[in-house]
Amino acid sequence: MHMLSRYLPILDWGRTYDRTVLSNDLMAAVIVTIMLIPQSLAYALLAGLPPVVGLYASILPLVLYAIFGTSRTLAVGPVAVVSLMTASAAGAVADQGTAAYLEAAITLAFLSGIMLAILGLLRAGFLANLLSHPVISGFITASGILIATSQLKHILGISAGGDNWPDMLGSLAASLGTTNYWTLAVGVPVTLFLFWVRKGAKPALQRMGMPPRAADMTAKAGPVVAVALTILAVLAFDLQAKGVNLVGAIPQGLPPFAVPSTDLSLIQQLWVPALLISIIGFVESVSVAQTLAAKRRQRIAPDQELIGLGAANIASAFSGGYPVTGGFARSAVNFDAGAETPAAGAFTAIGIALATLFLTPLLFSLPIATLAATIIVAVLSLVDLKTPKLLWRYSKADFAAHMATIGVTLLAGVELGVISGVGVGLMLYLWRASRPHAAIVGRVPETEHFRNIERHKVFTVPHVLSIRIDEALTYLNARWLEEYVLEQVADHPAVRSVILMCSAVNEIDASGLESLEAINHRLGDGGVVLHLSEVKGPVMDRLKRTHFLEDLSGNVFLSQDRAFSEALKDDGQDEVSDDPLLARGMI
Amino acid sequence: MHMLSRYLPILDWGRTYDRTVLSNDLMAAVIVTIMLIPQSLAYALLAGLPPVVGLYASILPLVLYAIFGTSRTLAVGPVAVVSLMTASAAGAVADQGTAAYLEAAITLAFLSGIMLAILGLLRAGFLANLLSHPVISGFITASGILIATSQLKHILGISAGGDNWPDMLGSLAASLGTTNYWTLAVGVPVTLFLFWVRKGAKPALQRMGMPPRAADMTAKAGPVVAVALTILAVLAFDLQAKGVNLVGAIPQGLPPFAVPSTDLSLIQQLWVPALLISIIGFVESVSVAQTLAAKRRQRIAPDQELIGLGAANIASAFSGGYPVTGGFARSAVNFDAGAETPAAGAFTAIGIALATLFLTPLLFSLPIATLAATIIVAVLSLVDLKTPKLLWRYSKADFAAHMATIGVTLLAGVELGVISGVGVGLMLYLWRASRPHAAIVGRVPETEHFRNIERHKVFTVPHVLSIRIDEALTYLNARWLEEYVLEQVADHPAVRSVILMCSAVNEIDASGLESLEAINHRLGDGGVVLHLSEVKGPVMDRLKRTHFLEDLSGNVFLSQDRAFSEALKDDGQDEVSDDPLLARGMI
Repeated sequence: MHMLSRYLPILDWGRTYDRTVLSNDLMAAVIVTIMLIPQSLAYALLAGLPPVVGLYASILPLVLYAIFGTSRTLAVGPVAVVSLMTASAAGAVADQGTAAYLEAAITLAFLSGIMLAILGLLRAGFLANLLSHPVISGFITASGILIATSQLKHILGISAGGDNWPDMLGSLAASLGTTNYWTLAVGVPVTLFLFWVRKGAKPALQRMGMPPRAADMTAKAGPVVAVALTILAVLAFDLQAKGVNLVGAIPQGLPPFAVPSTDLSLIQQLWVPALLISIIGFVESVSVAQTLAAKRRQRIAPDQELIGLGAANIASAFSGGYPVTGGFARSAVNFDAGAETPAAGAFTAIGIALATLFLTPLLFSLPIATLAATIIVAVLSLVDLKTPKLLWRYSKADFAAHMATIGVTLLAGVELGVISGVGVGLMLYLWRASRPHAAIVGRVPETEHFRNIERHKVFTVPHVLSIRIDEALTYLNARWLEEYVLEQVADHPAVRSVILMCSAVNEIDASGLESLEAINHRLGDGGVVLHLSEVKGPVMDRLKRTHFLEDLSGNVFLSQDRAFSEALKDDGQDEVSDDPLLARGMI
Repeated sequence: MHMLSRYLPILDWGRTYDRTVLSNDLMAAVIVTIMLIPQSLAYALLAGLPPVVGLYASILPLVLYAIFGTSRTLAVGPVAVVSLMTASAAGAVADQGTAAYLEAAITLAFLSGIMLAILGLLRAGFLANLLSHPVISGFITASGILIATSQLKHILGISAGGDNWPDMLGSLAASLGTTNYWTLAVGVPVTLFLFWVRKGAKPALQRMGMPPRAADMTAKAGPVVAVALTILAVLAFDLQAKGVNLVGAIPQGLPPFAVPSTDLSLIQQLWVPALLISIIGFVESVSVAQTLAAKRRQRIAPDQELIGLGAANIASAFSGGYPVTGGFARSAVNFDAGAETPAAGAFTAIGIALATLFLTPLLFSLPIATLAATIIVAVLSLVDLKTPKLLWRYSKADFAAHMATIGVTLLAGVELGVISGVGVGLMLYLWRASRPHAAIVGRVPETEHFRNIERHKVFTVPHVLSIRIDEALTYLNARWLEEYVLEQVADHPAVRSVILMCSAVNEIDASGLESLEAINHRLGDGGVVLHLSEVKGPVMDRLKRTHFLEDLSGNVFLSQDRAFSEALKDDGQDEVSDDPLLARGMI
């Protein structure tokens, strides 16, 4: 039972489901549904897909997440960044508007779903750690700029393309002469209206006497108002005849049953982007789920979240949708509207299903420009220009990873952007990990304490060198350890004993152990004795399983003070010499 | 001057060069030359190249390393593992024996040289840390098995192929019927003789009254004896007519001037193997250079070593050679023979050049089987079957990386073997780094010390939670930190104050800072105050450059004891509440 409810969280919250919770969930579902309809159409447009695909991706995935997900309030569906990544990946294998393009999008959802589920079963959620905050925020800023730029053509009523920012701007500039002014006359006011709705509507409604919560909810319906008004404008002025692009006929009815491609060469082309979509989607989703859960002192289980999102994406693939994840904005709305359980997501799915059954004819005359305006307003709020300055002040390494991500994403596209951000971050981390902190220490007079000789007035003698290592000894710093100790000894020719103070060494892996063995042998060649002090219990237990303690030229002391006192007595006349290359089997 | 001698170490040791050093270097050069001639021919054979290419790779590269390298005793030239990797990489783009194959090998040396030099100028020697000791030893064991297997065909006098072990064994088994017994009659005795020379010759010579050092040096000349005897056997019994494969005509004269390919598609195919060759070669070279330098309390500069090896490989490419590096066996011989400066390497180069000018006709009748036997005996000593058992006992993670490297190298070849070893090692490292150690601590009664509540009898109260973090807060564990702290608070519903004890936190990167901010906000939402204690000086300096200290709901205390005492007084009635999603700009 415990096992089962770990993989099926619905068994947990389902047992205590009652009428109060039901009415709260239903209320939240209505609000999220109203918000989700224009958003789903818009994000499908951004992904280069027919608008109805956005609706398909907002039905079955929500039901599956409700069964397998652990967040009570996460709202799953199409989101901006993942839609952009889908457009980039599918665009690399087929042209927009073709059946092959749609097939690629469906296959991406399928691959991403399988990958997420496998990572979840392997409990490999920690992989998302590879994306540092500066890399994520750089990626989101750059994606926001790319997305907003990609939508400008719909506001201008022109054709333009481009996979990276310079190409997009060039393509826009080249077609600027063909601007359709009727489209512009719809697009610009809608964009301004939506910006105002986002910032100014709630205070304005409150000034008109509406209570804060109602004002907030009404403001959230702004995009629906924009949709309604622009449809009316199209009908009133016959804008279709004047060249304004409309959503047009949307197939009515529930999502079709789709089968993801089993074409191996397609899978070979798509697995890398699918992996990136999975990780980015997971990080976005977990961040928001954690934030919301903490507000109510609830918990989410990141590894089970992988399974929940995996199931949602597989469901999306089989119902003709494209990759989905938990979105920032809509989850916050769901939470604010009072959703208490994942059932709210299932009710939203019913709402969207009803919309695909009955509302799609009404959307025939919706201008594409309205959807583009929705996207632009949503993503520009993701663009964060303050972070670079803060990072520069706080950490140059993080700044470098952030700027590299922004630069590569804008110039070479989303996939290389993420990869290079992870690469730069990892490189800088490994660089630092390979140079851990260590200090030469001496005894604080009249005490048993040992402190850094550079910061304190301490007692040392020329023939004893005490080195405190402030880090676990792993393969990343094993080479450094050898170099550091041997250099210090080379710098202090009088030294006859070296004491490594291991009070901060939480672990010694096999490479660290080999480095200690090498140091022991090499110091021995030069007639220097090696002692260890303050080795932690678990570390010592593992060392006892090896020959190291027998081979050690000196001793292991419980305290640095004891080690130092013993080394002081030692006149250093014992000489060790053998061929360490032969001894280590390297020849 | 300092700058110049950093990049040109020759300026350093060149100034004090005198006649004694000269005679020592000359002596060592003679011994290494004698050893290097059969070895160079054999390794070229292993790389699938004409034997003379091995000689070319042993002339100019040694001179360049003498100018740019920092090790006094490293002997550079063709080595077994790099030769195998060259065969694998060049074999993927062309057939052995063709001009395209030779061009690929030369281009590999060129690319590898450029990469090494660039890494050196970028001071990126730390990249070699990615190869942990278990991965390196697994790779060398598997390579030894692959190399020995690949040479069996020459001992049997048959044709066989295969890029991985199962294929090699299958191919050998299939051709076993065509064994040339005359070749076998040469190959088996030579192999046994060389095994005996390696282990038994020195004691035997000593028993015959030779002094130890002379016995050692004479034993090292064993391969030359084998070469001479088998040439005589070929001539005496006219073995060429009986189907024994011979080295044949070697072009006489100094290395030609060669130009590496500038064919972009070839470079695209070869850059990954070239990078792997560079890193494996660098690791092998630095390991041996460090071991030898330590014996005489000398130092090497790893970043400058990259430049030295880079120059050597570029020189190899321009003189018709293939990738080279510092070899284990020959460097130890050079050291033992008394080499004092890199000039010994330059003298060795002169020796090999004289050999290519005058000795090559003598090698016409050398059986390929003799070279194969040299290789088999050399590489089987690299196969280390004790390490897996030791690793299993010491560290399961290191064992996994070791076995993955051996398995993938044997089954899928050298390149994938290295990559998967690095991948598995990094994955396990990141997995551990993402779960650092932390403990809930309480006050040891009657003291100001705080210890882990699970290991000591300590004083705690329900409304104060003290957590000691035993690791730097970086992006790899930032998510863990949030989860850990929030879970602990969820598990202790009475908690009103959380104290993070930061005595072991050496660094907080931007992601760690954001996690602290998020924890502060989320705890605030639940009415819990966050304090920090014992923050280190440099960490505090950086925190002061941010808004974090102003936003922190609690205080930063110099000691955990002060923090705990203050939190005890606090009745926890202050309530903080705002929308943290809005506050963090996430909506």
